[in-house]
Amino acid sequence: MGDADAEKVLAPLRLHVKEQGDIVRGLKESGATTIDIERAVAELKARKRQLLNKENELVAKEDFPRQQMEDTLKRRFFYGQAFELYGGVSGLYDFGPVGCMLKNNIISEWKQHFILHDQMLEIECTMLTPEPVLRASGHIERFADLMVKDEKTGACFRADHLLEGHIEKLMQDKKVGLDVKEKCKTVLQQLDNYGKEELGTLMREFEVKSPVTGNEISDPMDFNLMFQTTIGPGNAMPGYLRPETAQGIFLNFKRLLEFNQGKLPFSAVQIGMSFRNEISPRSGLIRVREFQMGEIEHFVDPLRKEHPLFSTVKDIKVPLYSSKAQLNGEAPSVRTLGSAVEDGTIDNETLGYFMGRIYLFCVKVGIDPFKFRFRQHMQNEMAHYACDCWDAECKTSYGWVECVGCADRSCYDLKCHSQAAKVNLSAERPLPEPVQRDVVSLSCNKQAVGKAFKKDAKKVQAHLEGLSEEEIVNLETEMTANSVYVYTHSDGGKFNVLPGMVAVKRTKKTFQVEEFMPSVIEPSFGFGRLLYSTLEHNFKIRAADEQRTFFSLPAVIAPYKCSLLPLSNKPDFNPFITSLSLALKKLGISHKVDTSSGSIGKRYARTDEIAVPFGITVDFDTVKIEPHTATLRERDSLVQIRATVEEIPQIVYDLVQENTTWEEVMKKYSVFEEQ
Amino acid sequence: MGDADAEKVLAPLRLHVKEQGDIVRGLKESGATTIDIERAVAELKARKRQLLNKENELVAKEDFPRQQMEDTLKRRFFYGQAFELYGGVSGLYDFGPVGCMLKNNIISEWKQHFILHDQMLEIECTMLTPEPVLRASGHIERFADLMVKDEKTGACFRADHLLEGHIEKLMQDKKVGLDVKEKCKTVLQQLDNYGKEELGTLMREFEVKSPVTGNEISDPMDFNLMFQTTIGPGNAMPGYLRPETAQGIFLNFKRLLEFNQGKLPFSAVQIGMSFRNEISPRSGLIRVREFQMGEIEHFVDPLRKEHPLFSTVKDIKVPLYSSKAQLNGEAPSVRTLGSAVEDGTIDNETLGYFMGRIYLFCVKVGIDPFKFRFRQHMQNEMAHYACDCWDAECKTSYGWVECVGCADRSCYDLKCHSQAAKVNLSAERPLPEPVQRDVVSLSCNKQAVGKAFKKDAKKVQAHLEGLSEEEIVNLETEMTANSVYVYTHSDGGKFNVLPGMVAVKRTKKTFQVEEFMPSVIEPSFGFGRLLYSTLEHNFKIRAADEQRTFFSLPAVIAPYKCSLLPLSNKPDFNPFITSLSLALKKLGISHKVDTSSGSIGKRYARTDEIAVPFGITVDFDTVKIEPHTATLRERDSLVQIRATVEEIPQIVYDLVQENTTWEEVMKKYSVFEEQ
Repeated sequence: MGDADAEKVLAPLRLHVKEQGDIVRGLKESGATTIDIERAVAELKARKRQLLNKENELVAKEDFPRQQMEDTLKRRFFYGQAFELYGGVSGLYDFGPVGCMLKNNIISEWKQHFILHDQMLEIECTMLTPEPVLRASGHIERFADLMVKDEKTGACFRADHLLEGHIEKLMQDKKVGLDVKEKCKTVLQQLDNYGKEELGTLMREFEVKSPVTGNEISDPMDFNLMFQTTIGPGNAMPGYLRPETAQGIFLNFKRLLEFNQGKLPFSAVQIGMSFRNEISPRSGLIRVREFQMGEIEHFVDPLRKEHPLFSTVKDIKVPLYSSKAQLNGEAPSVRTLGSAVEDGTIDNETLGYFMGRIYLFCVKVGIDPFKFRFRQHMQNEMAHYACDCWDAECKTSYGWVECVGCADRSCYDLKCHSQAAKVNLSAERPLPEPVQRDVVSLSCNKQAVGKAFKKDAKKVQAHLEGLSEEEIVNLETEMTANSVYVYTHSDGGKFNVLPGMVAVKRTKKTFQVEEFMPSVIEPSFGFGRLLYSTLEHNFKIRAADEQRTFFSLPAVIAPYKCSLLPLSNKPDFNPFITSLSLALKKLGISHKVDTSSGSIGKRYARTDEIAVPFGITVDFDTVKIEPHTATLRERDSLVQIRATVEEIPQIVYDLVQENTTWEEVMKKYSVFEEQ
Repeated sequence: MGDADAEKVLAPLRLHVKEQGDIVRGLKESGATTIDIERAVAELKARKRQLLNKENELVAKEDFPRQQMEDTLKRRFFYGQAFELYGGVSGLYDFGPVGCMLKNNIISEWKQHFILHDQMLEIECTMLTPEPVLRASGHIERFADLMVKDEKTGACFRADHLLEGHIEKLMQDKKVGLDVKEKCKTVLQQLDNYGKEELGTLMREFEVKSPVTGNEISDPMDFNLMFQTTIGPGNAMPGYLRPETAQGIFLNFKRLLEFNQGKLPFSAVQIGMSFRNEISPRSGLIRVREFQMGEIEHFVDPLRKEHPLFSTVKDIKVPLYSSKAQLNGEAPSVRTLGSAVEDGTIDNETLGYFMGRIYLFCVKVGIDPFKFRFRQHMQNEMAHYACDCWDAECKTSYGWVECVGCADRSCYDLKCHSQAAKVNLSAERPLPEPVQRDVVSLSCNKQAVGKAFKKDAKKVQAHLEGLSEEEIVNLETEMTANSVYVYTHSDGGKFNVLPGMVAVKRTKKTFQVEEFMPSVIEPSFGFGRLLYSTLEHNFKIRAADEQRTFFSLPAVIAPYKCSLLPLSNKPDFNPFITSLSLALKKLGISHKVDTSSGSIGKRYARTDEIAVPFGITVDFDTVKIEPHTATLRERDSLVQIRATVEEIPQIVYDLVQENTTWEEVMKKYSVFEEQ
């Protein structure tokens, strides 16, 4: 189904969303009651969900030969299920040689495109994380899915998936009455909005049972999605495998700021594994329990979110699916980043700059620009910290998949850790001119305090000297009023602090700088999802033969850049293969020599399947005719040219480095027709 | 203390070991009783331990300014303790920008040196590992340390460390009698040999208490060093974080063999994190709980352990500390790998080849060849699987540290997984000529079996058809003797199989190949330890100023290759800085521009501290005099030359690529004296 046809199907659903969006807006403007507004918003979300589901359904129907691709991926060991010998573990995959090279190439291009281009600071933190860190970040409380258990076997299921499956079955059951089906429809539409209690009530109402055994199931319970372990012996230090790499960067903010000589903005980066203990993973590489991320945390003064390089991306046109468009039932619109920042659709230049860089990167590694969009989070689905967030989504046979998130996390994370660890995580901004300010300070009369409180003197003194300016003023007021200030220690002890024990001073102080908590803009990449999406976008079937498939991956990320094949296993070919291989090695071109006995066609097909963009063949003419020549074949067009064995390695190098194009090469050298 | 002086101190200890070695040999030759031999061997080990301890003590005494180096590393954020904001977690470190670059460069050089050079197959497996895998590999049973607990607080201690500390205290206590001290000495010498029971007895005997509280301690117990977790919800799938990357490669052996078109030998490689839940980590980066490894598993026919490239390393001279030398109380001897393989000191060419490559790599990344040796495992300390194993050790202020292991694991791992998972993990070797062999096979008469055993027929049939050739012959014998073969199923059921139910056939079959279980040679690298060792080996203090320190790291792994400094912040310098920076970028040279306000000397010192090997300075002459020139400074010699701004980037490139040397550059360009 083409995009235009899809739009026809979606149009009424979009309208449906828009109507409800108008109602919500109307209610808000007319100052309706909170209850009325909430009810209308719930309906709005339900309609939005219906629209997204339909969109994904249409995408999935687009007849992508996923099974055929997966056969190729498995057969050529791009990746495979982990621990297959032992029956396999779902949600865990091992990358084979070709997949590993492909992923490494994507990451190496990522480093060029982001880290080197913008001189970012790369760091590497541990995956093991002690509990207090993840309590402060909110993950202990909120990083969870709802789960139910089979009361007898203890088997676990994701609550929403189970209810969904049960209800979909009911709706197809001819024996079920229309009224029940109507109720089912409502529930399905609201599924995202139900909390623990509501889901439980509904599951009892619909008499949902364990789908495997038919046993009773438990009430829904929170299942935290972090892998738990214990650091060191005993139970002294509970810990988790990190759910994202970002936290490690926040914890190192002070060291990084110092490394950057106190200057903002700067970007810190981490590439590494993160973990998510899915209840029941499905959808292959899209939803796994262990995955590699690349996260950029760009620390910036919240008052200065303009970006000096924004002009380099402002004219790029991308499909933007803004939250407003979603609410208005509109399709994504293709527009320049510049205009979107200008009218406030994208919150600020820095966010817009990174969106531009993300788009350029995705296209560079083979994402089809027509299967790419930025979708803005709606207020309701935004993470608890973000103040604007866009997902870069790729269209796959699993529907639209979030491959990159780009969020303005404001100062949420630094604030959390600053409070939890009681450490100042602010930066400083020079003031336009020095400012004089009254400063209130307190000093203790140690002798008097010591005499009055003896063994407790130290803790009283520590308390007094730790008071903030505001607290000192309060102490002063209390002391003036009552001639005493009473300090109650956390252990219950009470201490009467008398006027002679402290002196409050007021001085003028000149400030050159002011403190502030930096904002964080976070582009966050899931490499596995990107890799999978680019595989789907580049999986092709030869027009002439349905059995012959290939991946049209860009040379820059192709696992091997070039194959090197003798026409047959005649020994005369060997010296040429050896010297060509050496020349390619010298130029740093990864290549694969295939001297196995298959026909040349079969061997070409094999290199096509692992996405080798160029192939050199040594044939009889190479040996017989001087100057010695060989053929060079391009994977996508199947066209071959002939050039001397001295020239060919350099041609491949220039093609891979994009110093030239295949069109230019075809023009310059004689096109060779296979005999 | 120089090496010669150290040898003088060690000589009597070496002799002491040798004498006992001779006694053991004598006992063995004269056929003494096992008890006598074991007693003599225990004494031998004790003496060996004494020697190693003394060696490490001498090394540690060599007055390395570790505190000064660590200050630099911390201040310039090479790495730091993880979670410092929350009080820190011992055994966990975060790498900062400079440390991260350094580690990445070491790994990238490692990939060049091993993976590319020998066309190895890189794969990437998951860290999460289900229990059955690690049960099969032996880690559940054997990957443990002995631990005792404070009976009241539950605090945990490594049993051997605790006893050692206690006894060392006793030996320094003047009130303790000579007889007790004698006993102490014996215990200390035998410490490595005690098992769980013996340690417990000794701890009771010496009345060891908790060193923190003085409380009673528990008996020693095994503490498994793997981090445990649960995969998925519920307790259905216990799992661990992998203790090594090797297992993932073994599990993928079949896929890799197929990828390699069934051919041996080949090497598979994995770079990744592994985990070890140390009871009480100490020694900085040397002993951590989460660490990056690079492991090569070279699969080879056990009958063909010669190596085609051995000739490329056979003349390399390395210090070999063979188990024989250790037993004879000899010092390590410097000799060629070729001679060591020839006389069997090193088991085979392939092992020798990898040792040569390891040595070359270590030296390339800055390990001091005079602080490097290969130490062979003694029979008693060899891992349960190895048939020959050499550790590449680096001398540091912590003593000799194992940075690379190089083991011939024989077919231990493949065999374990083959048995546990009931999968054939063998490879095939072509026979010199086809072999005809009698094959015994059995077929069931399904009808007869079905009639006789009804609902049990299937399991009886499965049993019969699963019999090995040997078992078929046994069945035949039994049946001929008794006219019945009785099969007892694991559930207790007994089944009388009668002659009519089975037919045993003998046929001749021609075999072109024979099956065998490949051997595995495993070079295994700990990148953190290598990084730490090369930092120590390259930490230098300027003769002129004790406060000025630098790292003389080779350019190939230096985090930044070049610094770019304007003499002052005069704006005239900027255009030159910009154009030089661009030229360096084009050549792919990582560089650091420092336009901060410090004096040029201070800024040089800063770049020295992060090991930048070359520095370009733009000064007044650059601006004033045409052709425009700048100075280029070399970190170790402090010598500067002058060349044109057009030439300099290429000079740096050639220096980094080792196309030229600093000596040649000094000859060619005028040496510049600082004003």
